[in-house]
This record gives sequence, structure tokens and C-alpha cells, in this order.
Amino acid sequence: MDYEYDLVILGAGPGGYVGGIRAAQLGLKTAIIEKDKAGGVCLNIGCIPSKALIHQAEIFRSTEQLENMGVKVDLKEFDYAKVQAESRKAADSLSKGVQYLLKKNKIDFIEGTGTITGAHEVSVGKDRSIKARNIMIATGSRPRELEGFGFDGKQIINSNDALMMTSLPKSMIILGAGAIGCEFAHILSSFGVEIQLVEMLEHILPTEDADTAQLLARSFKKRKIRMYTGAKASAPKKSKDKVSIEIEDKKGSRTLEAESLLVVVGRVPNTGDIGLDSVGISTKKGFIPTGDYYRSSVESIYAVGDVIDSPQLAHVASKEAEIAVEHMAGKAETVRIDPTLIPAAVYTEPEVAGFGFTEEGAAKQGHEVTSAVFPYRGAGKSVAIGKTDGQVKIIYNPKTGELLGARIIGTQATDLIHELLLARSSELLSEDISRMIHAHPTLSEAIMEAARAAEGWAIHI
Amino acid sequence: MDYEYDLVILGAGPGGYVGGIRAAQLGLKTAIIEKDKAGGVCLNIGCIPSKALIHQAEIFRSTEQLENMGVKVDLKEFDYAKVQAESRKAADSLSKGVQYLLKKNKIDFIEGTGTITGAHEVSVGKDRSIKARNIMIATGSRPRELEGFGFDGKQIINSNDALMMTSLPKSMIILGAGAIGCEFAHILSSFGVEIQLVEMLEHILPTEDADTAQLLARSFKKRKIRMYTGAKASAPKKSKDKVSIEIEDKKGSRTLEAESLLVVVGRVPNTGDIGLDSVGISTKKGFIPTGDYYRSSVESIYAVGDVIDSPQLAHVASKEAEIAVEHMAGKAETVRIDPTLIPAAVYTEPEVAGFGFTEEGAAKQGHEVTSAVFPYRGAGKSVAIGKTDGQVKIIYNPKTGELLGARIIGTQATDLIHELLLARSSELLSEDISRMIHAHPTLSEAIMEAARAAEGWAIHI
Repeated sequence: MDYEYDLVILGAGPGGYVGGIRAAQLGLKTAIIEKDKAGGVCLNIGCIPSKALIHQAEIFRSTEQLENMGVKVDLKEFDYAKVQAESRKAADSLSKGVQYLLKKNKIDFIEGTGTITGAHEVSVGKDRSIKARNIMIATGSRPRELEGFGFDGKQIINSNDALMMTSLPKSMIILGAGAIGCEFAHILSSFGVEIQLVEMLEHILPTEDADTAQLLARSFKKRKIRMYTGAKASAPKKSKDKVSIEIEDKKGSRTLEAESLLVVVGRVPNTGDIGLDSVGISTKKGFIPTGDYYRSSVESIYAVGDVIDSPQLAHVASKEAEIAVEHMAGKAETVRIDPTLIPAAVYTEPEVAGFGFTEEGAAKQGHEVTSAVFPYRGAGKSVAIGKTDGQVKIIYNPKTGELLGARIIGTQATDLIHELLLARSSELLSEDISRMIHAHPTLSEAIMEAARAAEGWAIHI
Repeated sequence: MDYEYDLVILGAGPGGYVGGIRAAQLGLKTAIIEKDKAGGVCLNIGCIPSKALIHQAEIFRSTEQLENMGVKVDLKEFDYAKVQAESRKAADSLSKGVQYLLKKNKIDFIEGTGTITGAHEVSVGKDRSIKARNIMIATGSRPRELEGFGFDGKQIINSNDALMMTSLPKSMIILGAGAIGCEFAHILSSFGVEIQLVEMLEHILPTEDADTAQLLARSFKKRKIRMYTGAKASAPKKSKDKVSIEIEDKKGSRTLEAESLLVVVGRVPNTGDIGLDSVGISTKKGFIPTGDYYRSSVESIYAVGDVIDSPQLAHVASKEAEIAVEHMAGKAETVRIDPTLIPAAVYTEPEVAGFGFTEEGAAKQGHEVTSAVFPYRGAGKSVAIGKTDGQVKIIYNPKTGELLGARIIGTQATDLIHELLLARSSELLSEDISRMIHAHPTLSEAIMEAARAAEGWAIHI
């Protein structure tokens, strides 16, 4: 059979474009089909623009400190549209950057909707059919719509809408307090929106370590973000300029009201209309089952990122894509990602980051487990910059010293976590960190001190 | 002989107080003699207050971004005294923290000036004499005064004066472009002071990798900081409200003029009047020679930190002190610090951090050496937060993959460096970093990409 490409990828998000570049590096002739913009959701309507908003929120929040310096700040003409425009600039510039990278790597970027029509065949629109040795599905996901909570783009909105808003409501209910919900609570409350954050599960950041989530909740509370956890929400009512929901929690049932309602209760894989039936791939709850190297039940077809049942994170999609294409090229060094080595990052203030087991999780799996904690305020740098909320928590086996996981909450947690992750991924012990000189004054010293705390000799505690 | 203490420490800076706490942890009965405040220079009139100023400088510089949001900012009543007061608060709070830690660890804090009067004896003032099994000298250093450039506290000032200033001059000449000079250039220029930065050696940050220093110089230039390198300065002239110096560089000789002149050309060890003669310890250029475990020529006397000829950095003093007291307690795991594992950190914007060999240095020592660079702008996070200036540079042996050093210039470099330092100190290879998942979007991704660049497969380049 004659193939036009070694690899055709459906979707140019962090799974598709990173996988495409890696494939090209390994000599595979590659095309990527994308119906929207290069970079996918993450880059265009996810991680990147939200981080641009978060950065500006941080600057906006610093007006109090400016006033402490005698600087007069007048917010009367503050224009959120300009903040939002700034976030679009970042997204657009990076999307162009991805297009440049694809070109540079001689990857064909095909605009349109790709549909699988055979084990080695993808159609684009009506007229074009492409034959490829391998196909990789990286079509990502979209916001989940709850029954009865239909998105209308104005009063009941999803994360896409929230990122595209050019004016702010006075008040907002956020349904779902996962990473996305908490990040929006942080952004919008920074700009003065009254936030009510509703979570069905026991605590905000429900998949996070309870202890760490509790610290974020405390910080949110100080900022007057109202939180309702263990709360079931029922179908919303819309009036002309308000939307309300009923919630039921331990305290009984109540009505919450706000100008708009943001529903962020997960994302649905885009697997419905990409032609899976034509090759006999069946999905499980919408996800494509994959085996080693992220290969589907059809040998020539791989699937990575939000379409498979693994953490829906950009860096997971990228790594899965790398593993898949390295396998196609006969160079795979890994079979699948070790789930305990996946970092999670939440860009609130304080930030939250972590990987590996929680204490409860490790105990359930039969590990001997304990933890050591060092508070940010023990690191001089945190005091110097006035960001003392937070802690580093190391979860480890007290007998062997094996690092089982870590959680950081605090400024710059999302970067700091990588020192601990490297320790875990390279099977180092706490003493490798505790004995290493850390520059003073840095926040990284809190990591060194947490490692020392695990050994009983933290200095600043 | 009957000892009142196992250990008496002269000086409560990051050498003295950290060593003291470690000694107490190991069961040594310890006293610290300090004539000034607990925490020493670093904490009271060095690293900590300067970082507090730098943090506020960053906030002050963000007014432009606030104006981009439509926020009106009026600087008329800006009061630098308030900025400075904030930095004092941080210093005072940490100094109290150190006192608390000493108390908690049952270390006697003796106010006064300690003088060595014998191999096991220290006097404090006129009336008190203390016998101790061991003595540790951690008296630190003070700003170096250049001949003809006598500090007057107003027109010709040192770093202490600069940190205590409660009003800003319109213009300042900074003589010496090492870490301290560059940090002051950054702080003061952020608040609108016109800066002329003069360096005798070839480039700013003269002990840094030339490439990295060049990038900082470029960033300083954009900010209108004028730099004169390879420039000899001659004795200054003071008039009523100006101070001028002659400089001679490649372009000939010129006169620079400003409201004040900050001289930051190194620090002098405080070893002159601490009684070294009484025990026959002689200094070299003011430094106390030490052998293994930082022991001086007198067996019972150790010396750590700025009084010995090692990098004058707080974290070096602390680690040296830890090694010394662990040795006294019979628990030393290290003989001396490996100089290639000392991180250096410069808190400019962009920040600069590094450790180990430069390329030139490694080649001189006979290493096979090359480097891989990844620019900050290739990491999506840097674009999202508008901080694209910078790069990660990994210096390594191309045959063995051994990591020889690293340099980062860019936002958060001083924290990010620790991932690479851990790799080096634990003898990991670039593939341990390049294959590890890094959270997206983070600046740490630039480290992963630099490691990939070393292996020829960076994605975003």
C-alpha cells in the first residue's frame, strides 16, 4: 500500500502538535489536520490565555501595595476588555509560534475536519482523502454541559465563554471547584467580581490532598470568596439579569443568585464524530481505550490526550504523543506514563502543585507512609516578598525514605514542584535534597527544609 | 578542663545562627555572641531587606501594565520612605524569628563583642570570660572601602547606607557591577533613579558566564541604565550637591557625575579585632585559612562564612557551619563544600542564577565541554506572563552527558536553578530531565527543553 504520510494526526493541540514535531524529528513524514487554530484548546482557549489573565490579576491585586507606597490608584476607568485583549495577544502569538514550528519541521498543516475512514485513511471535508501508515487521534475535549444547565453564552457559560468575556459581571456562581473553577474564582475575584464557588464533593480541588485544599480554601475565604462544598446544585432559573440555583448541602437547601453562572464540571472527549465506527473502535464513556504506547484496538491508530482516560492535562497529552510517535518510529523508551510522575498545577494565589500519592492514597495501596511539612513562612524569601501563605509537604516511606509524592501550596509552587518531581522520577531520597545547598534567599529553601523535616533536622521550624 | 559550653560561636549571621541550631540539634551546648542583631548582615542589612526592596520595585514597575488596563496611576505622592520601611519590617520580623529559633533550641544568645583569648576561651566585654570546648568564628564581613573613596554616608555610600536610605537621589553612580551593584542598579532604576554602572572588569557580573552577563546588560540597556565596563575609576570629587569620578576605559577618559556614589567593590572579612593573635592564627588577605571541616590552624577553632576564602554567600556560610559543627559532634558527612555545587543568585530582573563550570572554565580544567541553550520565549508561560527575556544554558560533557554547570537568566531563575543543581549534585544526566514530564505551562519547561536541546530534540525551538 502506498502512503502519502507516515503519520496523520487529528488535532493540533499539545498532543497533536508536540507529537507531530517529535515524529518529524524521528523522520516520519507527518500531517496534522486541525479545524480550528494551531495550538488547540490549551493554547488558544485554555492554559495560556488563563495564565495571562492570572498574571494581570496579580498585578491588579498589587494596587494595595502601591497605595502603601503613597501611589494613588484610580480604578474608575479600569477596563477589563483591555485585560482580556492582552490574553488574546499571548494566545495568538503562541498559536503563530506553533504554526512556525510545524512549518520549520516540514509538517503539513491541513485546515479542516478530519474523519477516519479506514485503518490507514482519513478524509478531510468532502474532497480529500489521505492515506497514512499511522493515524494519531488528538482531538481533545470540550466543556461538559450538565443536563438542565444548557450554555447560553451569557447567563450560563462555560470556560470558553469565561475566557472570551470582555466585561465583568458584578457577581458569579462557579459550579465546580476543580482546577479550572478555582482558577476562575481567583481571576475574577481579583478583579472584584463577587464569587460563590459550589462543589459537589467534599472540598475544593476535590482530587487534591485534603490538607492542601484546605489551605487554599482558607486563603480564598480571606479574600471573601464564598464556598459551598458537599453541595448538590439543581437546575438554574434565569430572570432578566440574574441567574439562581438551588443548592443542598449539610446545612440544608438554599438559593444562590448571581449575574452569571459558570459551569466547569469537567470536559468531554471529542470522539463522537471522528469516524471511530468506520474502523470498529468503540469508546468507554466517550474515551478511546488504549494499550501500550497509546495504541487503540486498531494497530495503526493511536490516541492521546483528552480523548483517552488519563488526566486531562496538556503535558500529559504531549508526553503520550511523544511515546506514541517514538513507538511508531521504533524508538520508544517508555510504554506508558507512570501516573505517579504526572505533575498537577493550579494557578491560583497561592498556587498548588503536586504529584504522586497523597498520604491516604499511599496507605490504601499498602505503602508505609508518613509526611513532613515545612511552612513557607520559615523561608526568609517568603517574608521578604510578603507571600508567607503556603507549605511544602513531602509524602514518603519512613522506613526506606522512598519519596511517594509531594504537594506544594504557595507562590511559585507550579515551578518549585519540579525539584521534588526530579527526585522522585530519578529515585533519589530526601537526603539528596536535604544535603544539597539551596541558594539563599529562595523559596526553594522550603523544599530543602521539608526534606530536612523528614529527617528530623529542619533548621527554621 | 571544665567547659561552660561545647561550642561558642562568634556572630549570629547565617553561618553562626544556622550552625548554632545544627549544633544544638546534635546535642552540643551552644552559645552565640553577637554585637548587633540576630541574623547578621544577610538578614538585617543584606539579602533580606534588599529582596523586599526588589519585590516592591517589581510592583512599582508594573504600573505601566496597570495603565494598560485603564487604571490611572498617580506617582506624585510616591514616598520611597514607605518602601524602605516595608523592607525594615521584613528584616525585623526575621531577626525576631531567629531569636525565637535560638531560644527554642536552647542556645544562649549573648549580646556583646566576643574576643578569642585562648584556644578554648572567649571574652565578652571586660567582665565575662567563657570556656568552650570549641569556638566557631562566623563574624562575617563589611563593605570594602576603596582608598580615596571614603564613605561619608551621604555622597559616597556603601551598601548598608543604600539599604537605609529613606529618600532617593535623582541620579547615582554605582561603582562595582557584581551581584550587589547590579541589584542596586535594578532597584533604584526601577524607582526612577538615573543609574551609571561602572565596572573595572570586562563585563557586568564579572565572575559570571560572559554570555549570560551580556543578556543582563542588554536588558539593563533597554531600561536606560548606562554601563561602563573595563573602566578604571579615579578618586571622586565632591561639590555641594554632586559627586563626580573620572573613568578611563577603551574610549578614553571621561567624567561621570551624579548626586551620589555607591561603592560596592567587595566585602572585607571581619577578622581584625577578634583576638586571632592570642591563639596564633594568622590571616591571608584578611581571611582565616581553614582545612578539612573548616578547622583553623588551632584544632578547637573553626571558621566559616565570609571570614574564610570561599564565596561570600549566606548559603555557603550556613553549609560550612553545618559541616563544621557536624564534625565537632562526630557526625560530619562532608569534608568541605564542593565548589561546583554552590548556586549563585542575582535578583535583578531578569534574575540570574547558576552553578558549576562555565564553558571557558570547564575547558581550562581539561573537560570536554559544550553547551545547550533554550530561550525563555520558547516556554508558553513566559509569553503568557510577558517575561520572555532569558535563557537556560546547560554546560555538559558531550561524550558522557555529565552535567558540568548551568546558568539561567530570566524570571524566577533563582528558584528554577535548583532542579538542575539537584541533577548535578545527584549525578543525573540530561535525559533524566529531558524525559521527565514538566507541568504545562511553567517556566520549568525551559529547563526540560534545554536538556532536550543537549540531546538534539527540543520541541519549541
